[in-house]
Parts: sequence; structure tokens; C-alpha cells
Amino acid sequence: MASVGNHSSQLTTHDTPLTLLVMTIQTLTIVGVGLIGGSIGLAAKKRGLAERVLGVGRRQASLQEALARGAIDEAFVDLSEAANRADVAIFCTPVDMIAEQILTAALRCKAGALLTDAGSTKAALVRSLAGRLPSDVSYVGSHPLAGSEKRGPEYADANLFDGKVTVITPTADTNGAVLDRLSAFWKALGSDVRIMDPEEHDRGLALTSHVPHLVAAALVSLLRPELLPLTATGFRDTTRVAAGDPALWTGIFLQNRDAVLAGLELVQGNLERFRQALTRSDRVTLDRLLTESKLLRDTLEKNSSRRA
Amino acid sequence: MASVGNHSSQLTTHDTPLTLLVMTIQTLTIVGVGLIGGSIGLAAKKRGLAERVLGVGRRQASLQEALARGAIDEAFVDLSEAANRADVAIFCTPVDMIAEQILTAALRCKAGALLTDAGSTKAALVRSLAGRLPSDVSYVGSHPLAGSEKRGPEYADANLFDGKVTVITPTADTNGAVLDRLSAFWKALGSDVRIMDPEEHDRGLALTSHVPHLVAAALVSLLRPELLPLTATGFRDTTRVAAGDPALWTGIFLQNRDAVLAGLELVQGNLERFRQALTRSDRVTLDRLLTESKLLRDTLEKNSSRRA
Repeated sequence: MASVGNHSSQLTTHDTPLTLLVMTIQTLTIVGVGLIGGSIGLAAKKRGLAERVLGVGRRQASLQEALARGAIDEAFVDLSEAANRADVAIFCTPVDMIAEQILTAALRCKAGALLTDAGSTKAALVRSLAGRLPSDVSYVGSHPLAGSEKRGPEYADANLFDGKVTVITPTADTNGAVLDRLSAFWKALGSDVRIMDPEEHDRGLALTSHVPHLVAAALVSLLRPELLPLTATGFRDTTRVAAGDPALWTGIFLQNRDAVLAGLELVQGNLERFRQALTRSDRVTLDRLLTESKLLRDTLEKNSSRRA
Repeated sequence: MASVGNHSSQLTTHDTPLTLLVMTIQTLTIVGVGLIGGSIGLAAKKRGLAERVLGVGRRQASLQEALARGAIDEAFVDLSEAANRADVAIFCTPVDMIAEQILTAALRCKAGALLTDAGSTKAALVRSLAGRLPSDVSYVGSHPLAGSEKRGPEYADANLFDGKVTVITPTADTNGAVLDRLSAFWKALGSDVRIMDPEEHDRGLALTSHVPHLVAAALVSLLRPELLPLTATGFRDTTRVAAGDPALWTGIFLQNRDAVLAGLELVQGNLERFRQALTRSDRVTLDRLLTESKLLRDTLEKNSSRRA
């Protein structure tokens, strides 16, 4: 995990208790009050991070649910007023909508406002905002590695970010104090913060999230009604993410197209190696390929256990 | 799910309480006391299905663990004596060892003994035993769709088969009373029994289990140490089965080669469709493919919830 510019010394430390203590936001605006946005609201209120939480959404039903669950204090269909009052605003909308919403909001924001987002891709977004924001408003990208295939504020959880990694993606232009503030924000929500270059983030996520989603989608297509009784936990786990929202994921794939295509070709190559070994009933090669995969998967399990 | 021969009328009923009541095995021999074999022992004893449970294994450590956990009453390294005393014997060993073990055991068995197995593939095994067993010993294949990537009797669970499907694969030569007895055995262990032709079983399992395993193995190969912090529940779930035992799975793939190859080619075709749509940034096709996958995955979720 590379650190960026001169931020590394202060940001690779795992706790900044002083920063945590002083982090209080007068008004936090959450744009998109679904699973992620709703969870940010719940976590911010539970942990006393924000005095007032404003929620912006297109659908009244989601806003009402977020209000009812206490994830937000006030609901807005129009972005402008909620943006105008924000000290910190976080955009939890589909990745292909975020840039435009941030550009709109930034024009209304107070001086000193910090804007961020929770999108699954970062490079295209960061690129498209570069040099286009008012000089007294800051934007730095974020990506909390939390969530699930579920949607909506009814699945929001105040502990969603507990111990989960949130990647923050500053650029060479990012101000150090702004980065500290964003880092303190995510730590206050319970996250383990990592600093990465936006492109590095996208290349990594292509392999750990975007390509696995495509593969799960390709795999679940094997299902036919008569096979349902023959599915067990293996099939269910392997294909779970394919239940995710198609429009949301189409946006992610298009935003991170090149890295996803590169990862997809790696998987296709691996599958082809399996196919060729099986075609010639090559027990030695099959066993070797499966052993390499098992060792890698075991590494992952050890890593998760240590983190949990 | 097709029924086989004239067994359908009595076996598609979901409960046969009378059979359950009268099902008692004097001596049950379990060959291979790992996760599945150990769980069969625990379940059989918990539910009073067997008066005496004999365990056969190659490794003293596994046998001792199975004894200590109460999964078996007596331990054997040699198959012969345990086979000789069996009224019912079940082989829970790797699929490429089962046929030979059954042929060996059958020569020692008492008249009327029922032999079965818990292997993940059925057609090659059933074929290789056809016409080669003594006439007073019966074999019918079984496959409980339970288990995990874990191994060993330390993971055995008396409730492993509760509500889980067990497929029984009779042939045209299978005696109806023998099939009833095997069906009652699995129901007594808590399973939901399904009757299938061995080839139909293997074609189905190729799609719901064997190909997903290969795909998970191909996917986990994308992992590199620096990507570990970027893995979340999606990657973990999608690749979980790749932690399974390589030798065991190599055996499964080789035994079910043609069906696995056919399924693998379907997945490769699906991945290629995704790749082509992404290459030309075709939003409409990507969204359609992802929507088809999501609808299929949602069907699965509904089905599981109903069964759970």
C-alpha cells in the first residue's frame, strides 16, 4: 500500500486519539441514504461525530425510512439547501452520478467545506473533479470496504464500518490538513484508514471486488430451476455478490473498465489452464493448480482472522 | 428431478414416519472418519439410528479424535474386520478410492449388508461397481449435500445433515426394499432425500458445485499480498470453497470430467460475453447480463429461505 506525497508519516499511524477527540462536525450532509449512507448517519450519531445530519435522496420512501431509523435528522429531495449547510458532505450515490453531484454541491457549499464520497471506483471521479472545484472547498475520495448485496436504509447498521478498511485517495494537490480531517472522520466511524493513489486503488479493487462480481454473475447463469435442490452453501457463497444492483455495478465496471478487463483476462487465463489440464486428465497439473489456489485462500483466512 | 424406474411413487413422498420408526442398524461401519464420516457417526448416535458405530481410518489421530468426540465406538485401521461386522457400511473417503474399498469390503460383508458412500460424484463409481458385487450384498450411491472446505472429525457436527438434501442414485438394477432402507437411513440422519439417476446427479453437481470450485480457484489466484487489505466479504465468500483439499477435488474433477468441462465452457462463454460488452463500453448489454444474473441469484435466495 503506497502512501502519497508527504502524508505518509502522519497517516500510517493506526490511531490518532487526539484527532479523534477533536473531530466534531456541526452539520454532516449525506447524499444517498441507502445501506452505506444510512450506516454513516447511524454511526456518526451513535459516536457523537456530528451534531446534525442532513440526508438527501430522490425517493421519499428511503428518506422516511432513514428518518425513522434515526440515520438522519432532516430529509431533502433537493441537494442545494443540504449542501449549503454542510461542513462535511459525503456522496453515497452510484459512481456514475457522484462527479456531477459534487460539482453542483460545491457551488453551494460554505468556505472550508469538505466533500468526499463512498464510491467503489476512484480514479475517473478524482480525475473528472481535478481543477473544477471552488478553491475554498475541498474534495478527497473515500471508499469504505463495507456493505453487501443489500440495498436501502433498512439495512443500515451503526457498526458497519467497525474494523473495516476505508481507503482514502488523495492526489498530489491534496492539502495535508484536509486529509487529516477526512482520516479522522473515517476513524471516528470505526474504520481502519488506508491511504492510496486513486489508480492504485482502482487496480486493486478490480481484482478483489469488480472481477469477482463479474465471475459470480457468469457463474450464477448456470442455474436452472431443476438444479435448485442441488445447490448448497458453496454455490450460494460463490454467487452471493451477483445479487447486487445491476445499474450500480454497470456504472462501476464502466468507470474502471481497463483494470477490470485486465483482471478478467487473468481469470480467463487461469480458467483456461484448468480446462486444458482437465481435458488431458492431467492429475499432476490439476493438483498443483488447486494447491496454489488453496495456499492463497488460506493466507486470506489467516489475515481475516487476525483482523477480526 | 427425475425419479428412477418404479421407485417414484413411494419415494417422492417427503416423510415416511413408519420407515423412520423401524430404522435401526445394529452395526454401522463408517469408512473415513473426517468431517462427513464423523458427522454421520454423531448424528446416528444422537438419533439412536445405530446400536454400534465402527470407524475405519488410515490415520490414528483422526480415529482417536472420532472416538474422543463420540462419533464412533470402535476404531479400525484395517477395513476387513469392520466390514465383516457391518449391517450398513458407508464410505466417506475421496471419490477415487471408494470403488476399490467397496469391492474389498463387499467380499467380507454379511449377507444382506447395505453399502453406500458419501462421494461427490456418482456415475463413474456406480458404473465401476455394476455386476461386480456378491449377490447378497447391495450397493446404492448417496451424496449428502453438506460439508464445507474444512476437513477432519474435529469439525464433525451431529446436525450437519439437518434439512440438507441427500441425493440417492439407484440404477435400474436397484432393489426397491434396499432403496427404501437407504432412504430411511438418510431421513433418520435429518436429510431431505432426493432420488436421481447417477449421470443426472453428476451433470447437475458439475454446475452447482464442481465448476464453481474451479472458478473460485481461478479467482483466488488474483490475490497478491499487497491486495489483502482490499479484500472484503465479497472476495472471501466468492473464493471460500477454494480452500478445499486439492487431492480430494482433483479426484472429483477427474471422475466427472466431461460434465465439468461442459459446465466450464458455459462459464467461459458467459465471461467472454461480459468481456466483449465491457470492451465496447456497452452499458445496455452489461446491464442486461447483470440483471439476468441478479434475477437468477434472487431465485436461489428465495428457495434457500423457504427451505431454511
